[in-house]
Amino acid sequence: MTSISSPLSSENKKIVTDCLQGALIDLIDLSLEGKQAHWNVIGRHFRSIHLHLDEIVDLARESADLVAERAVAIGSNPDGRPGTVARDSHVTRVDSGYIEDGKVIAIFTDVLESIIRRMRERVDATETTDPVTQDLLIGITRDLEKHHWMMQAQR
Amino acid sequence: MTSISSPLSSENKKIVTDCLQGALIDLIDLSLEGKQAHWNVIGRHFRSIHLHLDEIVDLARESADLVAERAVAIGSNPDGRPGTVARDSHVTRVDSGYIEDGKVIAIFTDVLESIIRRMRERVDATETTDPVTQDLLIGITRDLEKHHWMMQAQR
Amino acid sequence: MTSISSPLSSENKKIVTDCLQGALIDLIDLSLEGKQAHWNVIGRHFRSIHLHLDEIVDLARESADLVAERAVAIGSNPDGRPGTVARDSHVTRVDSGYIEDGKVIAIFTDVLESIIRRMRERVDATETTDPVTQDLLIGITRDLEKHHWMMQAQR
Amino acid sequence: MTSISSPLSSENKKIVTDCLQGALIDLIDLSLEGKQAHWNVIGRHFRSIHLHLDEIVDLARESADLVAERAVAIGSNPDGRPGTVARDSHVTRVDSGYIEDGKVIAIFTDVLESIIRRMRERVDATETTDPVTQDLLIGITRDLEKHHWMMQAQR
Amino acid sequence: MTSISSPLSSENKKIVTDCLQGALIDLIDLSLEGKQAHWNVIGRHFRSIHLHLDEIVDLARESADLVAERAVAIGSNPDGRPGTVARDSHVTRVDSGYIEDGKVIAIFTDVLESIIRRMRERVDATETTDPVTQDLLIGITRDLEKHHWMMQAQR
Amino acid sequence: MTSISSPLSSENKKIVTDCLQGALIDLIDLSLEGKQAHWNVIGRHFRSIHLHLDEIVDLARESADLVAERAVAIGSNPDGRPGTVARDSHVTRVDSGYIEDGKVIAIFTDVLESIIRRMRERVDATETTDPVTQDLLIGITRDLEKHHWMMQAQR
Amino acid sequence: MTSISSPLSSENKKIVTDCLQGALIDLIDLSLEGKQAHWNVIGRHFRSIHLHLDEIVDLARESADLVAERAVAIGSNPDGRPGTVARDSHVTRVDSGYIEDGKVIAIFTDVLESIIRRMRERVDATETTDPVTQDLLIGITRDLEKHHWMMQAQR
Amino acid sequence: MTSISSPLSSENKKIVTDCLQGALIDLIDLSLEGKQAHWNVIGRHFRSIHLHLDEIVDLARESADLVAERAVAIGSNPDGRPGTVARDSHVTRVDSGYIEDGKVIAIFTDVLESIIRRMRERVDATETTDPVTQDLLIGITRDLEKHHWMMQAQR
Amino acid sequence: MTSISSPLSSENKKIVTDCLQGALIDLIDLSLEGKQAHWNVIGRHFRSIHLHLDEIVDLARESADLVAERAVAIGSNPDGRPGTVARDSHVTRVDSGYIEDGKVIAIFTDVLESIIRRMRERVDATETTDPVTQDLLIGITRDLEKHHWMMQAQR
Amino acid sequence: MTSISSPLSSENKKIVTDCLQGALIDLIDLSLEGKQAHWNVIGRHFRSIHLHLDEIVDLARESADLVAERAVAIGSNPDGRPGTVARDSHVTRVDSGYIEDGKVIAIFTDVLESIIRRMRERVDATETTDPVTQDLLIGITRDLEKHHWMMQAQR
Amino acid sequence: MTSISSPLSSENKKIVTDCLQGALIDLIDLSLEGKQAHWNVIGRHFRSIHLHLDEIVDLARESADLVAERAVAIGSNPDGRPGTVARDSHVTRVDSGYIEDGKVIAIFTDVLESIIRRMRERVDATETTDPVTQDLLIGITRDLEKHHWMMQAQR
Amino acid sequence: MTSISSPLSSENKKIVTDCLQGALIDLIDLSLEGKQAHWNVIGRHFRSIHLHLDEIVDLARESADLVAERAVAIGSNPDGRPGTVARDSHVTRVDSGYIEDGKVIAIFTDVLESIIRRMRERVDATETTDPVTQDLLIGITRDLEKHHWMMQAQR
Repeated sequence: MTSISSPLSSENKKIVTDCLQGALIDLIDLSLEGKQAHWNVIGRHFRSIHLHLDEIVDLARESADLVAERAVAIGSNPDGRPGTVARDSHVTRVDSGYIEDGKVIAIFTDVLESIIRRMRERVDATETTDPVTQDLLIGITRDLEKHHWMMQAQR
Repeated sequence: MTSISSPLSSENKKIVTDCLQGALIDLIDLSLEGKQAHWNVIGRHFRSIHLHLDEIVDLARESADLVAERAVAIGSNPDGRPGTVARDSHVTRVDSGYIEDGKVIAIFTDVLESIIRRMRERVDATETTDPVTQDLLIGITRDLEKHHWMMQAQR
Repeated sequence: MTSISSPLSSENKKIVTDCLQGALIDLIDLSLEGKQAHWNVIGRHFRSIHLHLDEIVDLARESADLVAERAVAIGSNPDGRPGTVARDSHVTRVDSGYIEDGKVIAIFTDVLESIIRRMRERVDATETTDPVTQDLLIGITRDLEKHHWMMQAQR
Repeated sequence: MTSISSPLSSENKKIVTDCLQGALIDLIDLSLEGKQAHWNVIGRHFRSIHLHLDEIVDLARESADLVAERAVAIGSNPDGRPGTVARDSHVTRVDSGYIEDGKVIAIFTDVLESIIRRMRERVDATETTDPVTQDLLIGITRDLEKHHWMMQAQR
Repeated sequence: MTSISSPLSSENKKIVTDCLQGALIDLIDLSLEGKQAHWNVIGRHFRSIHLHLDEIVDLARESADLVAERAVAIGSNPDGRPGTVARDSHVTRVDSGYIEDGKVIAIFTDVLESIIRRMRERVDATETTDPVTQDLLIGITRDLEKHHWMMQAQR
Repeated sequence: MTSISSPLSSENKKIVTDCLQGALIDLIDLSLEGKQAHWNVIGRHFRSIHLHLDEIVDLARESADLVAERAVAIGSNPDGRPGTVARDSHVTRVDSGYIEDGKVIAIFTDVLESIIRRMRERVDATETTDPVTQDLLIGITRDLEKHHWMMQAQR
Repeated sequence: MTSISSPLSSENKKIVTDCLQGALIDLIDLSLEGKQAHWNVIGRHFRSIHLHLDEIVDLARESADLVAERAVAIGSNPDGRPGTVARDSHVTRVDSGYIEDGKVIAIFTDVLESIIRRMRERVDATETTDPVTQDLLIGITRDLEKHHWMMQAQR
Repeated sequence: MTSISSPLSSENKKIVTDCLQGALIDLIDLSLEGKQAHWNVIGRHFRSIHLHLDEIVDLARESADLVAERAVAIGSNPDGRPGTVARDSHVTRVDSGYIEDGKVIAIFTDVLESIIRRMRERVDATETTDPVTQDLLIGITRDLEKHHWMMQAQR
Repeated sequence: MTSISSPLSSENKKIVTDCLQGALIDLIDLSLEGKQAHWNVIGRHFRSIHLHLDEIVDLARESADLVAERAVAIGSNPDGRPGTVARDSHVTRVDSGYIEDGKVIAIFTDVLESIIRRMRERVDATETTDPVTQDLLIGITRDLEKHHWMMQAQR
Repeated sequence: MTSISSPLSSENKKIVTDCLQGALIDLIDLSLEGKQAHWNVIGRHFRSIHLHLDEIVDLARESADLVAERAVAIGSNPDGRPGTVARDSHVTRVDSGYIEDGKVIAIFTDVLESIIRRMRERVDATETTDPVTQDLLIGITRDLEKHHWMMQAQR
Repeated sequence: MTSISSPLSSENKKIVTDCLQGALIDLIDLSLEGKQAHWNVIGRHFRSIHLHLDEIVDLARESADLVAERAVAIGSNPDGRPGTVARDSHVTRVDSGYIEDGKVIAIFTDVLESIIRRMRERVDATETTDPVTQDLLIGITRDLEKHHWMMQAQR
Repeated sequence: MTSISSPLSSENKKIVTDCLQGALIDLIDLSLEGKQAHWNVIGRHFRSIHLHLDEIVDLARESADLVAERAVAIGSNPDGRPGTVARDSHVTRVDSGYIEDGKVIAIFTDVLESIIRRMRERVDATETTDPVTQDLLIGITRDLEKHHWMMQAQR
């Protein structure tokens, strides 16, 4: 069966693959938890948060797609199936049921902070192993850090 | 804490809630499995299927959002978190790794067929309990059946 | 003088006409009360509500137009003149002068709830008398219930 | 040879297929007769009718496409070839040569009235056999009835 | 409770408030009567008038919004509720039921003429009291006079 | 009754009229057969052909409209009614039922080839009789020949 | 002083220059007379003719620009100044003051007919002298003949 | 025959009519002389001036249309026929043949200056006679003065 | 060296120049202070104010450009360099560091109020000296007063 | 192996193929030389020429694509590979390094002139051999002659 | 009071903050000086430079916003108030009054050169302290260097 | 003669210039070979590959332009003339005549692989010599690697 050749050495490919797979899980989970809160948030600030979360979900979806397509482009197989996400994700889960607006802000401040921490580790890990992947991860990190500020600013 | 009042009787609300939650799980799973295949498909028909799957993913995402917002609008709490999707979904999972184009067509023909069967049960269950929800489910079923035909036609 | 023939029996036409005329009054009144609050709302949540009300007004205007054109299409004469609206509307009126943001949310939660209740009666009344009209009313009801949820969520 | 599976029982599929094939013939014929009049109409109201007929043709073409794709989606084969349309259509034909504006209005008032009557029979016939198809036919009927009113209003 | 400070002296504010409230009533009523005729007009010129009235309604709605927001901006409370419009409007009402095309033209020629007369009085009254409001009223008057010409030209 | 004067001599008008009427029949038939195959095609190349055929149908519809309006502009009456198309068309008909992708390509290669042959005869016939019509026919021929190449290239 | 070289022989250039200058005068005059009638037309068909004339003015302006730029491109100097247009134009002038709708149709039917006659002479004159210019003139003639038909159809 | 009633006294109407007719002649002439130079300009700055003149022509055409429609709206008959423009215009004419870029700048600086001087007289004359017309003339004057600056800046 | 001639007398030009230069400083300062707060605001209403301030900045930038280009058009030299803004501005400065949302609202309510007061003085000063400039200043004042209301409404 | 059938006789096909291949080489070379100058031009008129050249490059690319696709459509194989362009092109090459603005104008005036001369020979050669190709070449020639004028006008 | 947490160590944060604050001052000053010259430039190349400067201003504004939002995202407070810009900027100021086109080019060549030099120092300083910020600064530097080339090319 | 100053040391400039010139040749050649195959490809997968190649050509053209403009911005002269491309390119050439679809995929998999290998060397070479150029090359490499994957996936 056909497989995709890699522009990277097999050693580097392994490191970069781990970074991309980790980022993929983080971003898919962010998109799903973001939607969960988008639907179930209540409180005086409902509308503002409801709209803000959709911007985060859009970012997460687009970034996940770029990250996964980058994985195939270096000859790996991204895995974004729900079971994998449920098993491997480090993202703090939101509870079921209504979530008060203040709590949404607190949760997503934390969620974004932990994803950013892992993204920065991946930025470091790809610096010499694959600068092309690094550049992609840097761009996503910048967007996540912007939303992290905006979440915090509303506390 | 605030909660959202329902335009439905509590009995009908329970039935409709189950239908919407079931549809939500099906549609989120479809969007995730669709992306998984979008990334990992290989074979001579790669490009055609790669593009087709993205249309299905777009449909699944938009429909999931409508279904979940409908659930809140009738006073329920949709649950679209990855753990819930992984636990409750009836969708046949695609395997990890590369998937040959012919196999993608076979799998998604099956996946769509089983979702459509459940959607039609939900259409029946909501006919008298909530025609407003039923109308939404009918529209989504129509779109799914269109893609089911297109998948089959490529076998 | 020319008049428009009806695809309905005269008995059904009468029932459907009443539903459409009732919906028309509700929707025009909603658009006018919505604008009244859009202009006179004050409070910390001013901007969010000011924008939200304009979405409701847009929905009310577009739906009113569809409902009135549906009435002519079945051979009736819709009546949306200000005197008729003032006389026949069941919508709770907002007071003149400034309206505090919390009060706007309370009033429109009530206003939407009562319109939705009447819309659902019309959905029932048109099920056998004219499924074409019923389908239109169902679509409008869905949109109104969405805004009803969003209003409530901000309480 | 591949064929498309149906979400309907074979009995229901037969009824629904007949409805869709009948609608297809009506709509294709409407699009062709509409163009014929669009080109050959004369009289003081030429421009108004010339433009109005193109809106009807657009509606007829888009609806025909939806109806035919619905037929394949339930496992049938739509037949919209010119010979079939010429043989099976119940639409009153416009004569060749110039058509005076008043006559165009009279003809298309009749044409639309007869198509609407058949569409409503199809709406009834699909209510229990396939609510998904019924919903599509209801939407098309609503648009046709709107243009029927507008044609009549110009008499 | 918060109120909005005015850039005008209290004397000027009173005069300008009256002008704006009067304009608001005229414009809302114009939008509602315009829609009433848009729906119920019949006759050979149906399509042309049906479309023309919608342009007038759009103008009336946009102008009403500008006028009402101008009122709040100078520290007043606009009142555009249906009861107020029904009570205070000077606009000649169209009758219920079908309206022949020639009659629509005659009525709206009159309606626009009387609104324009009152708008010009308001333009005069605001010249020294508030040139900012005057400029807004002049712009609206120009648009109304354009449609007044077009209505007349069709007599 | 009004008729349209011609910029051509009666002799030339006759020749040009025949060319335009012939082209009209070819193009309407192409649009109908193209849709027929667009709906009923099956096989591994389904999606590619399904999309390609819609481009051909769009071209055929737009060209048919230009050709028919050209006919009226030279004082003739185009006839594009289904009966006329069924009777006069030289286009090879596709069969009813599913059509395999390879067969679609073979049929439309032939269909386009025969239409192009007739279009080139019309280009010759209008060179001296009406260069304005010739220029229109040349443009349509160029587009048809482009699709003829693309069909063949897929054999 | 710089001048623009011509791709034509001096003999051909002279013939083509005359054709283009003649077309320029015709088209500028058409645009000015068209606007004159656009403003001063009255009668029941006011709106339809008012809009139609603006399409003709747009066509005349765009064509005049193409024709004049073609003249410079072959090394000539187009002259479209008002005095030249007033002196050289063969277009029948509309009278000052209001023009009844029926009269507008009669005048522009004549105006277009005479311009078309001259355009066809220019098409003949440029066939061998400059096929590039001929192709431009043919395209403009086609558009003028379309509007000529539409004007006549309203008689 | 129908005529359009005026919102102005007959004395004021006469003054305003003269202003509008004068502005119309200036603006049409500007549009024609602007195009003349747009086509015939040569020199190193050709491209810059060629593009700049088209912006002036667009402004002149749009303003002429607004001015003429304003004239009908106050019950007058604008006259923008080529003979009238040739006879009444005060605009300095550009010569025929090529015009060097520096000369174009000099001419249009003068042309705009003289039009602006007359526009300002019209602004004065309409201040009390018709503030609605004055507002229109002020807006056009502002745009002309902007282009006057830009022309001068290139000297 | 070239300079731009003025349509105003030297006396009027001096007055109008001062008005425009004053407005320019106000508007540039508003745009910079607006951005400062846009970046540094914190608090529960962060998102709403963050977005609102960007609308004010857009308005300030566009208005500053119009005001400065108006200054050149009357033969003056606008000065919008940072040193000039820092030296001449009367706008109350926001402090460095984070600014709480409530404080932002209080500050910009004051800032807008003081700019509006000066703009109204400029509107008075230009009434007879240059109505063209006055019209521009009136338009900007209207927009500023709208945002002043919206700021206040959030207190 | 599949090959594309031709609508032309083999003799005509040979002539037309040569014309199209020649045009292809000219147009690709024009696009590459145009970009070369777009990047390396310097001088006071840099910006104007830099932008103008990009319009020429866009035209050359689009025309090359049309010409090459026309070649395949008549059964030939266009050859636009760099080696073929380098070997067969008759276009005068620009030197490497910076090119002064005046020189760019001189070079591209020549380059366009020589391409136009060859294009006109191809227009003649295709008149009887393939009017469909001729029409395409005429259109491209018109665009080239327009840019030739504009280049010259800047000398 | 809330403050924004930083993804950087306090040492790195200090270095990166200085880089961002320095870039902010440079970019705001560039936008203000750019507008100053955009308004006051004169000379034959006025239009070209006037337009070019607006592109630079747009770039400067957008970059300033990204830089300032990046500062908040790393937990700092950007300071872009006019007094700060006037005090801290290293950009060479343009003089008041008209500026000849050649001088504008000389000044902005210098201005861009000095900003680029400082930007490159910031790119170096952020390489290890914050690659996310570095990536942003690199992108801005690339755009500035492009405009630096274009300015120089016009000398 | 003017030349463009460089932000780089002369040593670094030399290295970076070589990288950019090499990338330019690769990308221009890719765009030309891509078009060659776009036109001459045949086989069952014709349409899919025909469309895919145009995306690659668009990428190659846009990237070539960025790379060449980057070269001028660092003070070098890019050379993209056909002779230089033909002489210096390392890209494997496609043969003349028809190319079977499978062969196109094989060739462009190889072509992209070799370009990517050279691009990655350039990314390394510019890391310390010019991070601004490196960032541009990284972005282009990412896009090329994406298409490399897609080509391979179709093998």
